[in-house]
Amino acid sequence: MRPVCFLSDFGLNDDFVGTCKGVMAKVAPGIQVIDLTHAIPGFAVETGAEFLQHATRYMPDDAVYLAVVDPGVGTERYGIALESGTGAFLVGPDNGLLVPAAEVLGGVRQAVRLSASEFHVHPVSSTFHGRDVFSPVAAHLARGTEFEKLGERLDPKTLKRISVPEDHASGGEISARVIDVDRFGNARLSVRQKDSGLSYGDDLKLDAGDGYMDLDYVPTFGAAKSGALILLPDSHWRLSVAINKGNAARALALAVGSEVKIKHTQKGE
Amino acid sequence: MRPVCFLSDFGLNDDFVGTCKGVMAKVAPGIQVIDLTHAIPGFAVETGAEFLQHATRYMPDDAVYLAVVDPGVGTERYGIALESGTGAFLVGPDNGLLVPAAEVLGGVRQAVRLSASEFHVHPVSSTFHGRDVFSPVAAHLARGTEFEKLGERLDPKTLKRISVPEDHASGGEISARVIDVDRFGNARLSVRQKDSGLSYGDDLKLDAGDGYMDLDYVPTFGAAKSGALILLPDSHWRLSVAINKGNAARALALAVGSEVKIKHTQKGE
Amino acid sequence: MRPVCFLSDFGLNDDFVGTCKGVMAKVAPGIQVIDLTHAIPGFAVETGAEFLQHATRYMPDDAVYLAVVDPGVGTERYGIALESGTGAFLVGPDNGLLVPAAEVLGGVRQAVRLSASEFHVHPVSSTFHGRDVFSPVAAHLARGTEFEKLGERLDPKTLKRISVPEDHASGGEISARVIDVDRFGNARLSVRQKDSGLSYGDDLKLDAGDGYMDLDYVPTFGAAKSGALILLPDSHWRLSVAINKGNAARALALAVGSEVKIKHTQKGE
Repeated sequence: MRPVCFLSDFGLNDDFVGTCKGVMAKVAPGIQVIDLTHAIPGFAVETGAEFLQHATRYMPDDAVYLAVVDPGVGTERYGIALESGTGAFLVGPDNGLLVPAAEVLGGVRQAVRLSASEFHVHPVSSTFHGRDVFSPVAAHLARGTEFEKLGERLDPKTLKRISVPEDHASGGEISARVIDVDRFGNARLSVRQKDSGLSYGDDLKLDAGDGYMDLDYVPTFGAAKSGALILLPDSHWRLSVAINKGNAARALALAVGSEVKIKHTQKGE
Repeated sequence: MRPVCFLSDFGLNDDFVGTCKGVMAKVAPGIQVIDLTHAIPGFAVETGAEFLQHATRYMPDDAVYLAVVDPGVGTERYGIALESGTGAFLVGPDNGLLVPAAEVLGGVRQAVRLSASEFHVHPVSSTFHGRDVFSPVAAHLARGTEFEKLGERLDPKTLKRISVPEDHASGGEISARVIDVDRFGNARLSVRQKDSGLSYGDDLKLDAGDGYMDLDYVPTFGAAKSGALILLPDSHWRLSVAINKGNAARALALAVGSEVKIKHTQKGE
Repeated sequence: MRPVCFLSDFGLNDDFVGTCKGVMAKVAPGIQVIDLTHAIPGFAVETGAEFLQHATRYMPDDAVYLAVVDPGVGTERYGIALESGTGAFLVGPDNGLLVPAAEVLGGVRQAVRLSASEFHVHPVSSTFHGRDVFSPVAAHLARGTEFEKLGERLDPKTLKRISVPEDHASGGEISARVIDVDRFGNARLSVRQKDSGLSYGDDLKLDAGDGYMDLDYVPTFGAAKSGALILLPDSHWRLSVAINKGNAARALALAVGSEVKIKHTQKGE
């Protein structure tokens, strides 16, 4: 049996996640469900796509990805399943959530619309396809149901696509967007470490909207002084703006969507 | 081995849930525990009973239901286990929490008081029977311990009972109570969709205490305009009052226990 | 396969816990992970050590304890694994977090520094050893990798040690520290019930910094009147200060670290 990697924006203050797991255990007794996170902000498809894409690096190769961030539930969007080039499966709404993950898993080998209702829980709620469509389908894939049986084939080229955050560097200055603020007030940026062109120890300046401030690029909090404004790699291998033992988001008034600029210190600054 | 479906009011900010799971894994290595929810409001037995009853529709048929919402712990209430008509087991306090779920699972076939202390963890805390009595008993049932061995037989007629929320309709007007407010501000009502007698598209009025307002009955958020006051089915197949892309509870000052009235629009209104 | 008991300060508002579980499932398909708690306050090594030590009483005997409260990540502290006298394993940073648990599990039989990088996920992040070092090592131990292969042997006497909270009693007066405040406002004290020398029904006085107040020592909330200031055993078999159906921490301005004194009532008071 394949494990299921489950991401949603359901939170843990309700029984949504637990009910989905019940449905999966009913279809596939003994199924292993790995909760990636259920704290994706409500309806934030891009954030969910970035988390799901990142997770593929750490999950079992044979995982079934069940992802539900679904502002369009009850409208005309399809439920879909994808098979990736590496043989992983992905199940969720056709709103772009799944494709960035599939792309780093070898691309979309085949896609189906979830039109075969014998794999759904009935009656199907018009607002909770996570429970009634996506969870049972993921569990069927986990236990070996053939992908082709789940519904009519879709041309992968017709799938809805979104882009996960990227940075823009030009002329030595990096423009980035805050894509997440964690509970410590660290502001995760759209910049990937490997694309940044920066090196630890570089003398940097950060403009968070209010003029340039000194910024130290360090590998870890342990390498910075208390109270220092720092740039460091985060758990997704992107860059974060932080204050060592402080709260950068509060100090600099940063929130998701805020724009920042980073540049090397020039002589005379 | 049977799976355990676990509901409580423990929250996830402590080690209560984790410790209960350790106890279960010690009794029954490899046991599968499905966390239904641990966010039942503290001591809210009726809310817990409604969630547990609803969950039976989606959980494996052979589940052991472990439910702990237990304001009477340390007093004279009994710990009990029930066998339902369908062969499911339920374990928890004798305060009414388990009976509504058992009733939709074919009724209470047999009941025992958990008096056989060899199935408990010792010493038994006077405040944490979830860990020391209910969890080990649930795990013993999951691994096949005979129900009769858990303690002395109880007459099901002597079990404490509560009623889960119901609506009252008379003369075309529905009186309902808010039973839950979710994190989006949607107010879940005591009215079951199938008992409401309403049809999508009906012209409705809602009185939340301050006079009648227009209310649209729609199948999904996607079918409503932004800012519209709507009535729609929730995940438990009850009706919810919501504002599309807004917060109905805040706008209408609704909280758990608030009374609302819903009626069809009459000519001239 | 051994079960993993997982404690951290990661919270559940991110994908840290889920990613660690993915790593474990990749190394050891089908592994059972018991989440003890992920709500240890950020970097609170002593609190984490107390929770982990307490948990050993309830977890399976063959558990692998994975504990990550790691303010020194990225500095020179070692990652370590311990084998206890009872044959349990413990994995985490060498900052004192693991030793109190190991001590109640029969002491540290052997210790290694996690220097064998073939058991780590690469590249190893400088800030997230939970994912890249501790989780894969715990999973390897769970599936049977020999302890000795994980790295170079350490002399247990060189391990960093901390003390978990203890109380101080002298001359019939107990001085204790608040070690935790739960979501109901109950203040958990450093005093263990068995060391307190108190008996239920004793006439006690509590000084929370503002003079002595009457305090009832009771086995359960059910044994106290509403609004009464009470002392009662908590889930870790320590004593808690509480107000029945009230919030003691708020009423008495208690927080983690606050000092309180408890004494028997003297004649004439």
